Amino acid sequence: MNQLTGMILVAGSSPSTTNIHYLSGFTAPDSFLYMKTAQGGLLVVSAMEKGRAIKQSTPGTQIFTPADLGLKGKKAWNKVEQIRILMEIAQLRRILVPVDFPAGLFHALEKKGFKIAIERKAICPERKVKDKAEIAKLRKSQQAAVAAMKSAISLIGSAKIGKNGHLFIEKEFLTSEKVRQLIHKTLIDHDCAGIETIVAGGDQGTDPHERGHGPLFAGQSVILDIFPRSEKTGYWGDISRTVCRGPASAELKKLYNAVKAAQAVALRAVKAGVCADEIHGLCKTVFEQRGFETKEVDGAYVGFIHGTGHGVGLDIHELPRVGASGETLEPGNVITIEPGLYYPGLGGVRIEDTVVVTESGYRYLSACPKKFELL
Amino acid sequence: MNQLTGMILVAGSSPSTTNIHYLSGFTAPDSFLYMKTAQGGLLVVSAMEKGRAIKQSTPGTQIFTPADLGLKGKKAWNKVEQIRILMEIAQLRRILVPVDFPAGLFHALEKKGFKIAIERKAICPERKVKDKAEIAKLRKSQQAAVAAMKSAISLIGSAKIGKNGHLFIEKEFLTSEKVRQLIHKTLIDHDCAGIETIVAGGDQGTDPHERGHGPLFAGQSVILDIFPRSEKTGYWGDISRTVCRGPASAELKKLYNAVKAAQAVALRAVKAGVCADEIHGLCKTVFEQRGFETKEVDGAYVGFIHGTGHGVGLDIHELPRVGASGETLEPGNVITIEPGLYYPGLGGVRIEDTVVVTESGYRYLSACPKKFELL
Repeated sequence: MNQLTGMILVAGSSPSTTNIHYLSGFTAPDSFLYMKTAQGGLLVVSAMEKGRAIKQSTPGTQIFTPADLGLKGKKAWNKVEQIRILMEIAQLRRILVPVDFPAGLFHALEKKGFKIAIERKAICPERKVKDKAEIAKLRKSQQAAVAAMKSAISLIGSAKIGKNGHLFIEKEFLTSEKVRQLIHKTLIDHDCAGIETIVAGGDQGTDPHERGHGPLFAGQSVILDIFPRSEKTGYWGDISRTVCRGPASAELKKLYNAVKAAQAVALRAVKAGVCADEIHGLCKTVFEQRGFETKEVDGAYVGFIHGTGHGVGLDIHELPRVGASGETLEPGNVITIEPGLYYPGLGGVRIEDTVVVTESGYRYLSACPKKFELL
Repeated sequence: MNQLTGMILVAGSSPSTTNIHYLSGFTAPDSFLYMKTAQGGLLVVSAMEKGRAIKQSTPGTQIFTPADLGLKGKKAWNKVEQIRILMEIAQLRRILVPVDFPAGLFHALEKKGFKIAIERKAICPERKVKDKAEIAKLRKSQQAAVAAMKSAISLIGSAKIGKNGHLFIEKEFLTSEKVRQLIHKTLIDHDCAGIETIVAGGDQGTDPHERGHGPLFAGQSVILDIFPRSEKTGYWGDISRTVCRGPASAELKKLYNAVKAAQAVALRAVKAGVCADEIHGLCKTVFEQRGFETKEVDGAYVGFIHGTGHGVGLDIHELPRVGASGETLEPGNVITIEPGLYYPGLGGVRIEDTVVVTESGYRYLSACPKKFELL
C-alpha cells in the first residue's frame, strides 16, 4: 500500500450465516456455501459435517461435499468451482448474491464470466413473520431473559446503601460486573448465553453502547439490558428494565415515568396493519409533550436517541425495524418496544419488552414487572 | 428469482471487525468504516460512539462522525459518500479492500468510478506476532480456560458410576449440558464468555464439530474443548483435554497415549524458524507409526482429520495455521498444538495447549495437567 492508496474495512457480522441457518436449518463454525433455487436449497459442506447436515437440514435440501461435486485436492474448497458445479446440477444460468457477499469471490466470479447480480433487497423477508415453532423458541429465550432480569433486580434491591451512596452486598461494593455475572449465570441455567449485557448506572447509562463498569450507587438509574441467545436454537430474547436502589430524585422519577408512559402508548398502538414508523412517532410525541427534548449538546445527542424497536429472531437485530423503516406490521412479527431517554448529569432510562404482533394487538413473549425504585 | 437464477450465500463471520479492532483499538456492535492509510487510520462512527472512540482508539487515529464529514440526513450513512470524503481528507487516489468486503458496496464503488482493487493477502499479517501486552491478555483468557477445565474434570472425576455405566452427580445423570454449564459459570467468574464449548463423550467426540449432549458414561473418552473470549479485551484462550471416568479399555488407552505422544513430539519441535507444516507432519508420523490410520470409511473421515493447530488472538482461529500453511514460526506467535484421533466405535481424543513461540522453543500460556483415567 503506497501513499496514495487507502485500505477500507467495514466492521459487521455476516447476515448470510443466519439466513442460511433459517433457509436450510444448518449452521457450522466454518465458512460454507448455500445455493437457494426455485426448487430448493443446495449445501456444500465438509465430509466431517455431512452427517450432521443430513440430520439437521430442512427437507428438500441437497447436501454435497466437495468430493460429491468431483472436486479434489486444491480445488476442493475453490468456491468458484463449487458454484460452477452447483449451477450445472441445478441447471441455472444466472446467480444473485446478497450485498454482504464477499467482494473477493464476487470479483472472481465476474472475471470468470458468471452472470451475477447483487440483490439489494432483504434475502429472507419471510423471516419477519414467525411461525408457531419459532415463537415457542423465542419465548424460551425471553423467559431466560426475564429470569435473569428478576435475579439482577433482586440483587440490586437487596444491596445495602453505604457511605457516599455506594451499594454493598456482603460488605463488598456491588458493581456492574457482579450484576452482569449473576445475569450470565442465570442465563446459563436456562441454556442461553449472554454477551455484552448492559448494566449501566448513572451517566454510564446515558451512552446506549456502554456496557457499564465499576461500583453502583443508590439514587441513580441503572439500565439493565439483557439479550440472551439460546445455545440450542440460536433464537434471541431481549428485555430492558431501569431500576434505582433507594429513593430517586423527583427529576429522575419524571424521566422514568415519561419512558414508561411512552412504552405504554407504543404498545397500545402495536397491531397488524400499523406502520412501524407511527409507533416511533407516538413515543417522540410523549417525550415532547413532557418536555424531554432530543438535541445535540457539545457534539453528542441527548434525549430519545435511538429507534423504538427492532425485530428479534435468529439475529438480535432484524426486520422489521420500528423507527424509520416505513414497514407495516404483520401478524407474527416479533418486535421490541424500547423507548429510552438519556441525559448526562441526570441519567438514562430504557424500558423494553419483546412482543408478538397479532391481528388485534400484541402478546408479551414473557411478562416481567416494571418497578423503578427499589426501596 | 426465476427458475434460471440461484442465490448464493456464504456463511462466515467478518474478519474485518477484528482487524479494525486490532488496528484502531475500537470496536462497536454496529457496522462502521475504517480506512487504513500510510499516515494512520480514519474512523467513521456515530455521534453516540464518538466519545468512546476518542477514548479507546490508538494514537494517531482520526475520528469522524457523518456530520464531521459534512454528511446529513439520508446521505449520513451512505458509505460511498463516506469513503469519497475520507479519500479527499487523506488525499488518496486508490483504495484497496479485503476479500471479505461487502460485494454490494464494492460494486457501488466500482460503478461510481473509484479506483478499487481487492487485496488477496492477509490485511494484518502483523497480528501473527503478539507483543507483551497482547500475551498478557491471552494469558488471562487461557488462565480462565484452565480454571474451567479443572472444574469440569473435577466434576466428572467425582461422578458416581451407576447401572449401565451411567455417570451420576447427586442421583442425577451427569450430562454434557451440566458439565458445560459448570464450565461456562467458571469462565464468567474469570470475566470470560464461553460459547459452543465442547463436552462430547464416546462417539459424539468423534465428530469434532459436535458439542455433545445427553448423559455421559464411564469407560468412554470425553473430549473437553474450552475456548473463552475475554469480555474485557476480546482475546481468546483455547484448551482441550480428554478424560475417562473409571478404567478405560486397553484400546482406548492406546489411542490416548498416541495423541499424548504426538502432542509432546509436536511441542518439542515448536520454535522460531521451524516450518509449521513440519510440526503437523511429525504428528502424522507418530500416528502412522502407532498404527492409527487416517482414511475414509463410508464417506466420512476417521483418524487425524484436522490440522495440528492455529493462531489465537482477537480471533479464535487466526494465523499462523499449523497444518498446510507453509508458514515459518516467529517469536511471539501464539499457537495451539492440538493433535487428535477420531474413530467411531472407539472414541475421540484431542489434547490441546496454547503456547507462545520463542527463539528457543515455547512457553505455555498457562499450564494444565494431562490425565486420562479418572479412577
